[in-house]
Amino acid sequence: MQRVCFLLKVRADRLDEYRERHAAVWPEMLDALRATGWHNYSLFLRDDGLLVGYLETEDFAAAVAGMEATGVNARWQTQMAPFFEALDGARPDEAVKPLTEVFHLA
Amino acid sequence: MQRVCFLLKVRADRLDEYRERHAAVWPEMLDALRATGWHNYSLFLRDDGLLVGYLETEDFAAAVAGMEATGVNARWQTQMAPFFEALDGARPDEAVKPLTEVFHLA
Repeated sequence: MQRVCFLLKVRADRLDEYRERHAAVWPEMLDALRATGWHNYSLFLRDDGLLVGYLETEDFAAAVAGMEATGVNARWQTQMAPFFEALDGARPDEAVKPLTEVFHLA
Repeated sequence: MQRVCFLLKVRADRLDEYRERHAAVWPEMLDALRATGWHNYSLFLRDDGLLVGYLETEDFAAAVAGMEATGVNARWQTQMAPFFEALDGARPDEAVKPLTEVFHLA
């Protein structure tokens, strides 16, 4: 199992709406994440908009590719794109660059 | 079980040494973390020194207090303090402020 951590930046003026949207993620989106191997997946938000994602998966590249192949992900990411800063035209899921794990204690 | 995420900043000129130290954390420190309820605990490092901590614990305040009460933590944190930026005199473990979890998928 791979442990994956990534960072994004939510626009300061959209934080409340970002929180609301993520308290009510579409059931179809949750099903797609489960079906493509996203486990123990959390998003943590700092007050300034820095967003930390953490998940566990058998193969992160496959999990990302699996979501890419779903229509619901395309619809979700299109709606989420305006919430993020400095993505240089990429969708949030395309801008995700995992950090390096330097320590782990089971 | 609480999922906890926190951020710290490692000095850019100490990144290599930080990685080396965390590839060889003292066994006594690992034992103390386990004994005080730190589970599935990872540290992720971005190239610029931003450090993300993630762990699961029954009670984060109790886990922190438990480590505070150990001599090994005091010794470890004293050695780690010079690696971090902008802690305003606090030890890294005292500067830890958990982020808010806004989404979770089991």
